[in-house]
Amino acid sequence: MLEGLGSPASPRAAASTSVVGSSGPAACPPPSPSAPRSPESPVPRRGGVRASVPQKLAETLSSQYGLIVFVAGLLLLLAWAVHAAGVGKSDLLCFLTALMLLQLLWMLWYVGRSSAHRRLFRLKDTHAGAGWLRGSITLFAFITIILGGLKIGYFIGFSECLSATEGVFPVTHAVHTLLQVYFLWGHAKDIIQSFKTLERFGVIHSVFTNLLLWANGVLNESKHQLNEHKERLITLGFGNITTVLDDHTPQCNCTPPTLCTAISHGIYYLYPFNIEYQILASTMLYVLWKNIGRKVDSHQHQKMQFKSDGVTVGAVLGLTALAATIAVVVVYLIHIGRSKTKSESALIMFYLYAITLLMLMGAAGLAGIRIYRIEEKSLDESKNPARKLDSDLLVGTASGSWLISWGSILAILCAKDHPRYTWYNLPYSILVMVEKYIQNLFIIESIHREPEKLSEDIRTLRVVTVCNGKPLASSCLKSGGVAEDVAPQGRDLPPAAKGNVCMREGCGKEEEKQEESSWGGSPSPVRLPRFLQGNAKRKVLRNIAAFLFLCNISLWIPPAFGCRPEYDNGLEEIVFGFEPWIIVVNLAMPFSIFYRMHAAASLFEVYCNI
Amino acid sequence: MLEGLGSPASPRAAASTSVVGSSGPAACPPPSPSAPRSPESPVPRRGGVRASVPQKLAETLSSQYGLIVFVAGLLLLLAWAVHAAGVGKSDLLCFLTALMLLQLLWMLWYVGRSSAHRRLFRLKDTHAGAGWLRGSITLFAFITIILGGLKIGYFIGFSECLSATEGVFPVTHAVHTLLQVYFLWGHAKDIIQSFKTLERFGVIHSVFTNLLLWANGVLNESKHQLNEHKERLITLGFGNITTVLDDHTPQCNCTPPTLCTAISHGIYYLYPFNIEYQILASTMLYVLWKNIGRKVDSHQHQKMQFKSDGVTVGAVLGLTALAATIAVVVVYLIHIGRSKTKSESALIMFYLYAITLLMLMGAAGLAGIRIYRIEEKSLDESKNPARKLDSDLLVGTASGSWLISWGSILAILCAKDHPRYTWYNLPYSILVMVEKYIQNLFIIESIHREPEKLSEDIRTLRVVTVCNGKPLASSCLKSGGVAEDVAPQGRDLPPAAKGNVCMREGCGKEEEKQEESSWGGSPSPVRLPRFLQGNAKRKVLRNIAAFLFLCNISLWIPPAFGCRPEYDNGLEEIVFGFEPWIIVVNLAMPFSIFYRMHAAASLFEVYCNI
Repeated sequence: MLEGLGSPASPRAAASTSVVGSSGPAACPPPSPSAPRSPESPVPRRGGVRASVPQKLAETLSSQYGLIVFVAGLLLLLAWAVHAAGVGKSDLLCFLTALMLLQLLWMLWYVGRSSAHRRLFRLKDTHAGAGWLRGSITLFAFITIILGGLKIGYFIGFSECLSATEGVFPVTHAVHTLLQVYFLWGHAKDIIQSFKTLERFGVIHSVFTNLLLWANGVLNESKHQLNEHKERLITLGFGNITTVLDDHTPQCNCTPPTLCTAISHGIYYLYPFNIEYQILASTMLYVLWKNIGRKVDSHQHQKMQFKSDGVTVGAVLGLTALAATIAVVVVYLIHIGRSKTKSESALIMFYLYAITLLMLMGAAGLAGIRIYRIEEKSLDESKNPARKLDSDLLVGTASGSWLISWGSILAILCAKDHPRYTWYNLPYSILVMVEKYIQNLFIIESIHREPEKLSEDIRTLRVVTVCNGKPLASSCLKSGGVAEDVAPQGRDLPPAAKGNVCMREGCGKEEEKQEESSWGGSPSPVRLPRFLQGNAKRKVLRNIAAFLFLCNISLWIPPAFGCRPEYDNGLEEIVFGFEPWIIVVNLAMPFSIFYRMHAAASLFEVYCNI
Repeated sequence: MLEGLGSPASPRAAASTSVVGSSGPAACPPPSPSAPRSPESPVPRRGGVRASVPQKLAETLSSQYGLIVFVAGLLLLLAWAVHAAGVGKSDLLCFLTALMLLQLLWMLWYVGRSSAHRRLFRLKDTHAGAGWLRGSITLFAFITIILGGLKIGYFIGFSECLSATEGVFPVTHAVHTLLQVYFLWGHAKDIIQSFKTLERFGVIHSVFTNLLLWANGVLNESKHQLNEHKERLITLGFGNITTVLDDHTPQCNCTPPTLCTAISHGIYYLYPFNIEYQILASTMLYVLWKNIGRKVDSHQHQKMQFKSDGVTVGAVLGLTALAATIAVVVVYLIHIGRSKTKSESALIMFYLYAITLLMLMGAAGLAGIRIYRIEEKSLDESKNPARKLDSDLLVGTASGSWLISWGSILAILCAKDHPRYTWYNLPYSILVMVEKYIQNLFIIESIHREPEKLSEDIRTLRVVTVCNGKPLASSCLKSGGVAEDVAPQGRDLPPAAKGNVCMREGCGKEEEKQEESSWGGSPSPVRLPRFLQGNAKRKVLRNIAAFLFLCNISLWIPPAFGCRPEYDNGLEEIVFGFEPWIIVVNLAMPFSIFYRMHAAASLFEVYCNI
């Protein structure tokens, strides 16, 4: 009945744990209602609570606002996509521009305020906005700005017959991108503790603005892909399928024409990067939003290190896969739609390549999981918005490709006649599902494991704690000095304690047993085969992660750059009908593409943490 | 760096807190590695951990399995809806029947095992599976079984030309419904702690089976509504809109014909209840799934009480709204589609009625929020899967109707000519959005507030804890006996402590001040206007909840029983095109309907808790 008291709703309690930085049965701080406020502790919340609305309510207020804006944008996108009477592209662009300008204002205000009151922005979520994330967002943002430049060029070329919004939009978007990248570099880790309501609105507005820009990019890209597909169908002489081109080429001439064509081609090659940029930005902003008003347990994040030694096998295999992918995509794009036989051979080539790659990836993932299973260890399940979002996104976006795969399987099973190449589609579709299933398990287990070094510290601490009260055999602490350094509550343990191996070897049965009974939850490691112990194990895992990382980059390329057998093999379109299948693919494909990039990002993190 | 130690990953620690049943700074249990295992504690996890996979991994394993099954089912539904070549209704029904049989087997195993090993199933989540939830699920299940009976009758009538699956499906569904209701009555509160992997698979299988049955019901209902709508359009002489009836009436005769017609009409009046049953069952099962392996802080839930005194105003207003709704729906269904003028008058009547009702509801919600804002209190933000799901569902499903509303607003703004009745659509659509926004805020704040009595206990405890170590003025504990009864750690506080008011009056400034500084997070109540204090305030809130509850039931009726102005006013169909708009409405409407029922359910809970 009385948890309210002890729950983190009491800010003093929360503040004190966040400063102490350690919790658990051994380190439970005694209640100290009269202790002086630590200089590190967050700004007192009391005033904030009195003045504004409670945490949960502010969250609901802002999330509802965000959803309403998002839904309005989606509807405008839909209206444009279906050519609704009276709703044009310029209405959509106006709306998006307005959203971006509003976000710009808010970001300027936030940046200004945070530099004026540095004191208020002390708390950081060390898991959020990792370095590699900021790095990749910068890269994608750079390409997005180039895309903006191309769009401005396109607008200038066709300025006679384009509305002004088509020029204003890319300019605003470029400024927005610049400032947003700056904002994310400086503030992605913030844990906002004051004036929370306004911040919540600003951040959620930014999240959904980016999501709408993402949806806009996806829609442009889908329209483009669909047009290409229809052109191919026309070339192949399919008359029975509706083939009205949905082209938005302006109705006036552009000078010089060659430049204009180059620009409009270039735009579509850059869209995939823009799409990734928008979704990455919105995930980072979402984590910032989830962190507002959070009580941190100051779980110090281990500094990630990128080490490239000893991953030759994984890197070579992965780079081979990458090279093969690029070759396959080029050949595919040249052959597809030229003639019936060429299309079929391109499809067969693609399926064979993908089946091989997916099987290798599945095997690598299984090996990784197997290694984790041999050496059992409890997972770190502490609260961590960034990590939870990662896991949810992996499983959620995988569903997109599962939908497409089931569609292919159903089409193969139900179709009346099967050209030879369609049979390759069956193992391909099944493997797509299985591989994502396995890979998600591997990644989610990896990101929930405590980093190796940390867990060694803990093991040391355990034995030391157990041995502490009783006479120790001198063999038990060969490397010496550890037990003396450890404070009774284990708070000040030196980061790298090395008394571990000796204890496993030197301690008598009794200590071992006692250790097991008191820390039964995370059993001590089972003896691994020698080649899988310590560094060797770590090396194998790192090779797997590197290989999977490069493979995911590889599998991101084909759908992002127009190699989509789901369109081209034709079977599903016959079974489901052209329109329904195209709708399914266009809804599910963006998630499938995002999945690959997101899995690659997560695997990079896994790699650095192993 | 060492949180791993103290985090609940250590099962011994988790077990001990779950037994002690109280947490917080004052009640932090000392580490006791050698304490004997309490008979109350859950089954030791160690064996389980060693034998099976970690918690997080089991969660991912099962959720991915569930999603894959769900996606497969969705695709079969889609295939049926778009008349995919080679995929018939019987394939879909076979799949659903197989899923239900599998779930039946699992439930039988679970029920058998839990009665054999009662000891394993001690832990309960007191928030899950509330009485009113089980009550309403029983009611809906009863109607679902009647629906099953009608379907069996329909099958017997048309048995000549229906496949056997159409007979097997309703029989299996009836058995499935019966056993599932029994299962939910007995086990909705379980917190499963052993053999978690298999349980997780079973429960998630059940969740998605019910979701697919829900989607199947929704699709049947949508097809029926769409056919009715098309028939009306034909009557009104709209030739320019595609009007191919999507009717699945069997191609043979049924004897006696009148009975058959009655049955097939009856079926469609019962579908809305079946749909609610399925979604309720899946939410209850989802909470059960989230609770598997959870560490409970044994937060004892206050027994909910349904008291009907003092809510005359709310009840009378609500019942009036309900009666008005039924009248409006009947008149609407009689008039709509008969002739152009009759249709228009029906639409105007509906809009006027809905505008009035939504305005009243919005005002009531605002009043409720205002009362909460005057008397500030910290919210209970402890972990609680059932409550979190409730909040998420409210906001998530409201998005469905926000989508439709934006569609209407956009259509009104962009349409070229506006018949008079379309203008009523604008305030109606805006009010639908605003009212849901306000109502969600009210409900979410309500379900996060500690019940009145509980918070009084806490206030008492606070003062007592603070006063404990120092000489107390006798006036400070007039009602006596409280301080002596309270254990130093506050674990055994009698449920109804009454020393509260006297302390506010009798204690000196010093205690007051100290209380504030040490428990600053939840400020003491601001003085309310006299008419809003204590019981009076509670009475006002209860009236609001009762009124809103009845209004939500009222607003559930029109869309569920075929009164859908989004179809009938025609404006959106002209702007967006018939097909796109129908797709939008058919996707969003089920969520909008579910929202009303779910809000009603939540408001009932709010009412009982006030």
